[in-house]
Amino acid sequence: MYAFDEHTRVERIGEARWSGAVADVYNVGSAPNGGYLMAIGARALAGDLAHPHPLTVTAHYLRRSENGPVEIRTTVVREGRTLSTGAASLFQDGREVVRLLATFTDLETAEGPSHVSASAPDLPDPEDLPSSADVPGLPAVVRAFDHRLTPASVGFALGVETGRAEVEGYTRFPDDRPVDPFALLLVADALPPPVLNVVEADWVPTIEMTVHVRAIPSPGWLSFRLGTRALVDGHLDEDGEIWDRSGRLVAMSRQIALVLPPRDGGRRGPQ
Amino acid sequence: MYAFDEHTRVERIGEARWSGAVADVYNVGSAPNGGYLMAIGARALAGDLAHPHPLTVTAHYLRRSENGPVEIRTTVVREGRTLSTGAASLFQDGREVVRLLATFTDLETAEGPSHVSASAPDLPDPEDLPSSADVPGLPAVVRAFDHRLTPASVGFALGVETGRAEVEGYTRFPDDRPVDPFALLLVADALPPPVLNVVEADWVPTIEMTVHVRAIPSPGWLSFRLGTRALVDGHLDEDGEIWDRSGRLVAMSRQIALVLPPRDGGRRGPQ
Repeated sequence: MYAFDEHTRVERIGEARWSGAVADVYNVGSAPNGGYLMAIGARALAGDLAHPHPLTVTAHYLRRSENGPVEIRTTVVREGRTLSTGAASLFQDGREVVRLLATFTDLETAEGPSHVSASAPDLPDPEDLPSSADVPGLPAVVRAFDHRLTPASVGFALGVETGRAEVEGYTRFPDDRPVDPFALLLVADALPPPVLNVVEADWVPTIEMTVHVRAIPSPGWLSFRLGTRALVDGHLDEDGEIWDRSGRLVAMSRQIALVLPPRDGGRRGPQ
Repeated sequence: MYAFDEHTRVERIGEARWSGAVADVYNVGSAPNGGYLMAIGARALAGDLAHPHPLTVTAHYLRRSENGPVEIRTTVVREGRTLSTGAASLFQDGREVVRLLATFTDLETAEGPSHVSASAPDLPDPEDLPSSADVPGLPAVVRAFDHRLTPASVGFALGVETGRAEVEGYTRFPDDRPVDPFALLLVADALPPPVLNVVEADWVPTIEMTVHVRAIPSPGWLSFRLGTRALVDGHLDEDGEIWDRSGRLVAMSRQIALVLPPRDGGRRGPQ
């Protein structure tokens, strides 16, 4: 079994109730990554909805979550012919830590016109970029992937001030697990926050993240571009695009997050 | 009372239950606009949450909605010091038509660093752009505003093929109501779909839309830029930015929608 499948495994424990375990593999400091929690919740929802693939998933991060047991309670909101909508709540110690709202579909049967003006990032080959494993000080969630990041993307970690809130590069799972629509939910949040290249921050807690899965990726490297266009009074957007090796856009993500400057040293979580 | 306030008025009818009316002023054909329904739901949530302004609101559009009575059922998910999260469901004829998940805050007290690389669209003065009231064939929701759209934005309506899925211009309410965070939820969805400039479609039903309110707009014209970067197998993104007269980014929006080509003439709604 691939690592990601083990780490997002959920087991039905009742009507619309699932149990899982939050591993420490995808942590940022001592807190689990938000995209990872979204993937766990989406897996539980997949067990209760009629369609197989998350098309759009929104997560609101309510409280600090922990490594360890998690219970997921699902609600089927609507089942249609081509779309199913559901909600899920992740509970730890009896408290709701994440709320999800998602619509699923079958991406393999999607039909209709195409017209793409966006383009994949223009990058050197992945083999010509340094591995994120060689960049000091990055969190566990980054090291859980074979990321190849451009040097400007991790300027903050290398002591280089780029002044550009952008992160670009490639990624894949170290165990070569194919990145499916569920893994895309994690990948979309598994990169260093681009805003670190323009301000110092101890922590960039996500308030809400939405991921649109646009296609099932082909095997191999994925490329990505992540950027923050506006940090305003401590609130920031973070927009991501993920592309597969065949040149298809496979996911778009957007989150709204907070910057907690270094003076708030020990503070964690958006509340 | 301004028109928008009248059209989004909700009345408490019980514990976490609100009643409203869906006006026909913001229709697309015979269906109410999605951003309008979001604004009604957000108004009800505001009555039950501790913070005054929607910061991030996600709506999933479940079924075709109608003009007429609507009941809104709210759930307070979490109340924190600086953020409150709630869910809302819009019911018509006993069926849920829209599900919302939202986090509110007080934008007037937001504090923290700022760093903005995005910029407002570069446009002629609003007085030098034609009013959308003079463009034939646009839906009621567009005519409910004083929009000033660049000619390329409405190429589809003028019989000009631009091949660029972009809409740019200015907007304000005809009765000069200030655009507050609730009205931004409607404005974000009150423009012609940019995708109409690259494909023919009878209908572009929204599956899910998320709006981030980034600041309280200053009075006067707002400028906006709306674009579709990838239409893939009938699924499309639509990204919007709204700026105020003082040059501040006041909202970012993203939706995922479907294109229903002309051959599907009578079909309505995403299911």
